[in-house]
Amino acid sequence: MTLSNTERKIIENSIRDVKDFPKPGIVFKDITTLLNDAEAYGVLMNHLYQRYKGYNLNYIAGIDARGFIFGAALAQMLGIGFVPIRKKGKLPYTTISEKYSLEYGIDEVEIHIDAFSKIQNARVLLIDDLIATGGTANAAARLIKQAGASCVEACFVVALNFLDGQKNLKETTNVYSLIEVN
Amino acid sequence: MTLSNTERKIIENSIRDVKDFPKPGIVFKDITTLLNDAEAYGVLMNHLYQRYKGYNLNYIAGIDARGFIFGAALAQMLGIGFVPIRKKGKLPYTTISEKYSLEYGIDEVEIHIDAFSKIQNARVLLIDDLIATGGTANAAARLIKQAGASCVEACFVVALNFLDGQKNLKETTNVYSLIEVN
Repeated sequence: MTLSNTERKIIENSIRDVKDFPKPGIVFKDITTLLNDAEAYGVLMNHLYQRYKGYNLNYIAGIDARGFIFGAALAQMLGIGFVPIRKKGKLPYTTISEKYSLEYGIDEVEIHIDAFSKIQNARVLLIDDLIATGGTANAAARLIKQAGASCVEACFVVALNFLDGQKNLKETTNVYSLIEVN
Repeated sequence: MTLSNTERKIIENSIRDVKDFPKPGIVFKDITTLLNDAEAYGVLMNHLYQRYKGYNLNYIAGIDARGFIFGAALAQMLGIGFVPIRKKGKLPYTTISEKYSLEYGIDEVEIHIDAFSKIQNARVLLIDDLIATGGTANAAARLIKQAGASCVEACFVVALNFLDGQKNLKETTNVYSLIEVN
């Protein structure tokens, strides 16, 4: 199931373009205006629920911090658990971590080692607000596997297609993006 | 409406104590085990929904980053908008910011200037996972007022009562905490 044209328009129109953030030349896709709009937020979450209710998911994993917003709401709707994947140093218990490359330097994300330990081969949906180069999402999908679960799909509200992140991530897991920016 | 003893026990038992995080001598209240437990997470969110459905709220404001988890899920259940209050430099559009004191030094939180502009005197619930000294929550409640809305209540999953945060925050807004640690 994908978005209807009406749903797509409501969601697309609720996302704000902010020029030159976080640095000159970049147009930032601001999803706070989507969250702020009860109709658009409702349409988005209802669509995700309709798409994923038949996937037999055991957990939603969300990426720090905007992935928490959509992921936790979806987990609540599906009646399943939510697992945060966080930037290094934020999770209190024993973690597994994965490094990934940025434009300059490297970054690192972590998951609790026992995040999926209650369910054998748990089925997990990975979610974030946006995919750019896909570095964070790729590292997050690898963490899900290392923690003993299966990353069934990775889902993004916005995909910046010109950065090829979806293409790169498809080697790791299935990918579904609602709004594609070319 | 407050928690029943059964609800309280389910939620309390799902929170993990992690010793010496983030530094020696501190016992960290780890809510990832609560989120991981579909039953406990469901009981918690259903309680929040039952408590707040009669409050005529217009928005939930959640504090970066664990407040996003409970806040966004509750906003979805209530069919209202969600507003993130973020650490400095994370929000892309024009912001209002508030400084607050930490044990050593100061920190700063921000809100988008137009977060509540669609509704006159919007009624807002502030939410975070935990209240310690209350510095962040106090700053967040002040931001809500500065952005033209009314902070009807501040809600926390866990309150560390020995740090007096609830008492301090009560001068700014109503406070509701589910689990109190004495």
